[in-house]
Amino acid sequence: MKVKIVDVAREANVSVATVSRVVNNIPLVNEETRERVLEAIKKTGYKPNAIARSLKIQKTNTLGIMIPDISNPFYTDVVRGAEDVCGIYNYNIILSNTDSKAEKEKKSLDVLVEKQCDGIIYVGKDLSEEMRELLMNASCEVVLGCVADESNKLSSVLIDNEAAAYDLTIKAIEYGHKKSVVILDDFEQGYVNVKRLTGIKRAYADKGIEFDDSKVYYANSTSPLGVYRLTVDLMAQNPDFTNIFCYNDQMALGAMRAVEEAGKKVPEDISVCGFNDFWLAEWVRPRITTITQQMYDIGAVATRMLIKMCEKEESETKTVRVPHDIKIRESLGDAK
Amino acid sequence: MKVKIVDVAREANVSVATVSRVVNNIPLVNEETRERVLEAIKKTGYKPNAIARSLKIQKTNTLGIMIPDISNPFYTDVVRGAEDVCGIYNYNIILSNTDSKAEKEKKSLDVLVEKQCDGIIYVGKDLSEEMRELLMNASCEVVLGCVADESNKLSSVLIDNEAAAYDLTIKAIEYGHKKSVVILDDFEQGYVNVKRLTGIKRAYADKGIEFDDSKVYYANSTSPLGVYRLTVDLMAQNPDFTNIFCYNDQMALGAMRAVEEAGKKVPEDISVCGFNDFWLAEWVRPRITTITQQMYDIGAVATRMLIKMCEKEESETKTVRVPHDIKIRESLGDAK
Repeated sequence: MKVKIVDVAREANVSVATVSRVVNNIPLVNEETRERVLEAIKKTGYKPNAIARSLKIQKTNTLGIMIPDISNPFYTDVVRGAEDVCGIYNYNIILSNTDSKAEKEKKSLDVLVEKQCDGIIYVGKDLSEEMRELLMNASCEVVLGCVADESNKLSSVLIDNEAAAYDLTIKAIEYGHKKSVVILDDFEQGYVNVKRLTGIKRAYADKGIEFDDSKVYYANSTSPLGVYRLTVDLMAQNPDFTNIFCYNDQMALGAMRAVEEAGKKVPEDISVCGFNDFWLAEWVRPRITTITQQMYDIGAVATRMLIKMCEKEESETKTVRVPHDIKIRESLGDAK
Repeated sequence: MKVKIVDVAREANVSVATVSRVVNNIPLVNEETRERVLEAIKKTGYKPNAIARSLKIQKTNTLGIMIPDISNPFYTDVVRGAEDVCGIYNYNIILSNTDSKAEKEKKSLDVLVEKQCDGIIYVGKDLSEEMRELLMNASCEVVLGCVADESNKLSSVLIDNEAAAYDLTIKAIEYGHKKSVVILDDFEQGYVNVKRLTGIKRAYADKGIEFDDSKVYYANSTSPLGVYRLTVDLMAQNPDFTNIFCYNDQMALGAMRAVEEAGKKVPEDISVCGFNDFWLAEWVRPRITTITQQMYDIGAVATRMLIKMCEKEESETKTVRVPHDIKIRESLGDAK
């Protein structure tokens, strides 16, 4: 049988209102009574109804996370980081897939607001103007993950995609790669795509090498398959490039297979670079040269910021840059 | 400014109580009035407060998922399946990591019950007697994923681990492998471990080959590293086995690297089998022989069952077996 608030009141020999005040942390209860009530809660095994309580204190201690795809390991690390921080501060998470689609994003935001989340973390590879407006006008706090609001109205936590792509490109050029293919995500004008391409082009410009815009391609980034097919086609066309930059490590795996199936070797004939430093980058053959992007940290830092905002400890809008790092591994070698 | 229920009442020219009845689907409102209220809700942009509403109808349309590790892609596919089904039936998900630890599991269950989830999906590689009791006595519906309740008191959705391991072992024996090493998860007496080992041993017995119990090892299943180190040790001891069964595909990747670093080839010298058919099994070299375990389907089926239970459309306890399938790929070859 479920223990009710009246059972606690009887056990502690106080009124229901007093138990309610203790549960909801409302003052006006003297210390001795408070302890007696806490004792009675423990003894009876009473579980305060979180929903009824949240109506009183106007806080649900629930955060919403909008994420493009929970089955993409890249994003689940964000959730794991968020979850761990929530555990410390006694918050819970409601998760919502958006598939990076405008309609699903809007619906998802509606649900999270209706569920009275205290705050929302929006994770994605782009932030549309419409979504930016909706998030700015949402009746709760918001932090962005992996994307930034260029107008600086919304706080965000992410790596510097442009600098990361720049650093990796400079490294590839040092290995002699003057002709690279670039394969980005198929959300072509997405924030992350644009930043990365800017970084790659700036590196070429700084080294005084012309960048060939016709060598930029776009493919599905959730599986190696699209890049594999694209690279099979490129390899069949008597390729004049010596290196392939991929949007992520799964894609690099697809590119490497296509190169090898064409009878060429990675990196002896063609180098391949990934992005993110997903765990498999270190376990496949050849090991993948990539850029670390600490998704767990992005989730944890964004959540800590959001909780501070929810608890009115912080109000300033901030952009936090999580550091990136180049991992040179076997898949990058000297240009032929 | 947030639209309130009074604004809708004013717009529709009815009482607040009438708006409330319409929002909560309580009868007693005539059709014409109901339509006027719905019109007013649309016009004002009013969002009924989901929490206040759930207090009334004693249902939160929220399901809790207890999962060992959200950053393990194996489990996130379950969540994705659950999420997609929830989307169809207008439910939301609260996610909770348990790390397969008893204390965290108990705390996690408390939180989900306190949040008044209508139902809970418990996913894991084992179900302790204590947890089984707690779930049976929880004040909401429960479905198990990936584990079964042997006493048949709780419904569950999973593959037949014993049959799957049996089928794969028969296949390996047909390839001539009479001496295999078995590397299971380090939760040694866990439900999934026990079932798989039973299947492997039964296959050997059925083929009249003695199984060497000293060849069963346990390792961390969340990364290839533990299995890699273990296999490095085994390879250094002048191995007399020709095949390694691994608990999952990530572990198979670790075993393959250790075999190759010892100067041997997969599968020419030693075969390696995985489990789950994680996407990378098809993209690494050599491609990994494995068993498909449709985690997305497990999540989707468990969620559909749970929602039916929450809505009182189903009350019977059931064990649903999701079919498995053997994928023979390059990592399994003829025994030397």
